[in-house]
Amino acid sequence: MFENAELGHKVDKDTYDREAPEVRAALLEAQRELAGSDLSVVVIVTGVGGAGKSEAVNLLLEWLDARGIETHAMQKPSGEERRRPPMWRFWRDLPPRGRMAISFGAWYAQPLLDRVFGRSGRPELDQSLDRIVELEQMLRREGVLLVKFWLHLSRDAQKVRIRRLEADPRQRWRVFKRDWKLFRRYDAYRSVGEHMLRRTGDGEAPWTIIEGTDRRYCHLTVARALLDALRSGLDRAGAGRPPEPEPEPDAAHAVPDAVNVINRLDLGLALGPKAYKEELPKAQGDLGLLTRRLRKEKRSLILVFEGPDAAGKGGAIRRITAAMDARDYQVITVAAPTDEERARPYLWRFWRHLPPLGRVTIYDRSWYGRVLVERVEGFARPDQWRRAYKEINGFEEQLTESGAIVIKFWLAISPDEQLRRFRDRQETPYKQYKLTEEDWRNRDRWDAYEAAASEMIERTSTEAVPWVLVEADNKEWARVKVLKAVVDGVEAALPG
Amino acid sequence: MFENAELGHKVDKDTYDREAPEVRAALLEAQRELAGSDLSVVVIVTGVGGAGKSEAVNLLLEWLDARGIETHAMQKPSGEERRRPPMWRFWRDLPPRGRMAISFGAWYAQPLLDRVFGRSGRPELDQSLDRIVELEQMLRREGVLLVKFWLHLSRDAQKVRIRRLEADPRQRWRVFKRDWKLFRRYDAYRSVGEHMLRRTGDGEAPWTIIEGTDRRYCHLTVARALLDALRSGLDRAGAGRPPEPEPEPDAAHAVPDAVNVINRLDLGLALGPKAYKEELPKAQGDLGLLTRRLRKEKRSLILVFEGPDAAGKGGAIRRITAAMDARDYQVITVAAPTDEERARPYLWRFWRHLPPLGRVTIYDRSWYGRVLVERVEGFARPDQWRRAYKEINGFEEQLTESGAIVIKFWLAISPDEQLRRFRDRQETPYKQYKLTEEDWRNRDRWDAYEAAASEMIERTSTEAVPWVLVEADNKEWARVKVLKAVVDGVEAALPG
Repeated sequence: MFENAELGHKVDKDTYDREAPEVRAALLEAQRELAGSDLSVVVIVTGVGGAGKSEAVNLLLEWLDARGIETHAMQKPSGEERRRPPMWRFWRDLPPRGRMAISFGAWYAQPLLDRVFGRSGRPELDQSLDRIVELEQMLRREGVLLVKFWLHLSRDAQKVRIRRLEADPRQRWRVFKRDWKLFRRYDAYRSVGEHMLRRTGDGEAPWTIIEGTDRRYCHLTVARALLDALRSGLDRAGAGRPPEPEPEPDAAHAVPDAVNVINRLDLGLALGPKAYKEELPKAQGDLGLLTRRLRKEKRSLILVFEGPDAAGKGGAIRRITAAMDARDYQVITVAAPTDEERARPYLWRFWRHLPPLGRVTIYDRSWYGRVLVERVEGFARPDQWRRAYKEINGFEEQLTESGAIVIKFWLAISPDEQLRRFRDRQETPYKQYKLTEEDWRNRDRWDAYEAAASEMIERTSTEAVPWVLVEADNKEWARVKVLKAVVDGVEAALPG
Repeated sequence: MFENAELGHKVDKDTYDREAPEVRAALLEAQRELAGSDLSVVVIVTGVGGAGKSEAVNLLLEWLDARGIETHAMQKPSGEERRRPPMWRFWRDLPPRGRMAISFGAWYAQPLLDRVFGRSGRPELDQSLDRIVELEQMLRREGVLLVKFWLHLSRDAQKVRIRRLEADPRQRWRVFKRDWKLFRRYDAYRSVGEHMLRRTGDGEAPWTIIEGTDRRYCHLTVARALLDALRSGLDRAGAGRPPEPEPEPDAAHAVPDAVNVINRLDLGLALGPKAYKEELPKAQGDLGLLTRRLRKEKRSLILVFEGPDAAGKGGAIRRITAAMDARDYQVITVAAPTDEERARPYLWRFWRHLPPLGRVTIYDRSWYGRVLVERVEGFARPDQWRRAYKEINGFEEQLTESGAIVIKFWLAISPDEQLRRFRDRQETPYKQYKLTEEDWRNRDRWDAYEAAASEMIERTSTEAVPWVLVEADNKEWARVKVLKAVVDGVEAALPG
């Protein structure tokens, strides 16, 4: 794989001086088009130490309009980063539409080094790489163009390069102990790198391997490859391609099955006032003690609430938070995305505000909006919401792997009960704010929402994070069932 | 100060049941108005341990529409927070217009506890409090309504409260060792608290002190006080008040003095090609080594570049970054604010992206836009840009106190030289992107910009962070002068 990049490619000065200005002007033109497009670009620069990664990035910053580019160096993860899933830091740094980010190593650096230095085995490496393939696929489909470079040197060339830098008083600051440490592992680095590139470089997100021995060759080739990638990305996104069909409301198509996970629930289940008065405080007391243990064990708890309007999500949430110190939890209500959020892949706004480990976070509506309201109302195209099931499963998997306990609730009510509650809201002054025109509109699409919800529950109930279905026509029943499920879920997840 | 809050205030059940629904409905109505207003609200809840801070916040979250509120608990600062000025975390959490944030302790918690536990002396406390007064003043003027609560208990009442909580199996999870530790320092806590409240509670941002012995009294009083504050804030911001005068471009008024700091520069200063070829790489080599020391000493370097269009800011910046590893620096180009940024005080967008200590960050234009383009073009009202000098000085003071080395450059060119460069940009393909219509428009306001710039330089050259004025008609001279100033500045700031 690297053989071609160990041959000593060179470009002579005349060729460079002739070609560089052309490539530079074309890159700037492509960047200008990018600024007006729906595309964003992530350039990943990695490879062998001493191959000139930093100089290549400096060159791109010089040739392009640096005002449209951010660079990200992958330092060791900070405390805030370690308290979240490993991919968090990368999500946080995703550029908005029209802009470009250059990342040293990005999501490849850590898995590669961990394997080279024996901190992880082959299965862990492969798991990380699988996750990367998934991530890149999602990013591409969300309009992120990925351009991946591996700058290469042969073992001998690497040695020569480091020695030469050390000998030059004006360059020796570029050499660190780390560089020699990596050099001693050259063979392992090369072979893990090769495996990594094979596994993550498919036709859609290919790696460009470039020999770093000759600076002119390396720089011109990097610039050209970036230009090619930008041009073909822009052409694909632009006029050359038939416009995406406008998404249509899915309401007409979605018809719930005669029997589905939602409509076979027994909404007659109820709890009398006496039982409620006994069981609610008991469950709350249990939960209060458990949240202290959560903090001690540095685990987080993420609760997700979905369900029709007026299903009692807010009421159930308040019964939970009443049992917690207000310093320990955060209720996040998911509203319309902001401009900054709309300019990035849809999961960005959830990654962005992901709480650190050790906290309790309660979502009043969530990322499931993608396959519910966005599907039914036509804010997402069918190809977008269809792949969202898998993407959401992957997202939640990362949450649980990082140590979070995730519990998802679907609160089910009957149309009649909803109507009763809407009327009650109309009549009670301090409840009126809860009822909007939109609620009535959504009600007209009851069947479509039920169909979307039951498909969602089937597709996203995983072993680690199953849905808890709650019969919610009787509020007391629903609240106690939710509280007990939280207590059980946390108890099951904590040691002994 | 606390005497009135140690008398045992109570509210009986009938009064509570009668008044609570009214206050609740009025709070919701105020919150609805808030959502459509230019105001944002920060509620600070602090006070004596066991006085029911958490319950009071739970109540507010229950009575208000929790979807418009975030809560922030002030945990110990995380690693990312410690690597920035102490106020960073609070800026980050500022709510946008129309929304409310509730913070436990906010910027008061740390100074108070530090003093109570003897980790800081009285002068440090007072310095923190002065900074808080400045911050709150700025926030108020930027449309943030501050509502500050101190929930109080007498020494005896605190003891009784903690004991009672401990005895109740359903409440004992609320008591921590910390609570007894604080109880033993009750007298110190009370007296530092009193000092703090006196010093930070002026007529514009008063403290509301509420006795926490009786839950009904405490809750009703908190809710009422919040309601009053919201109402009067909304009335002041709303129709009751004459509309702010539309800001006007300051171009007509600003006339540069015949002699000012800018026009007395000798723009004839130049460096020949030979001297340039010698001095530039030497300074770059020095800088390369110094940035390694910077990293070792965990200091940051913040460079700010301002100056007319085509003054050579980008070129000077590239000569600096060429001497650094691309992993160590970040160039931030300041463009128009995003929607999320426009919804908050103007310094938010700079606080928000403040790099952690140990990095080099270069700003191509900066927060000085407030007193340059925003002033001249009339994007900021005169009262806004006039107070910005002091606010910016305070901001930079916090940067240097946290360990950053800050160097600011004004690159000065003559109108003739600017015209020459504009023409050159028109004619060189890979430079055309740099020239926009706006550049020509700004050029027409040369005098106004010069007047604004020279006033800015006079008002914001502080001892810790002076402006470096650079004669930039000759690019070589300017670049070498900038590089040497960076080298000198870093050397002077590093030990030995």
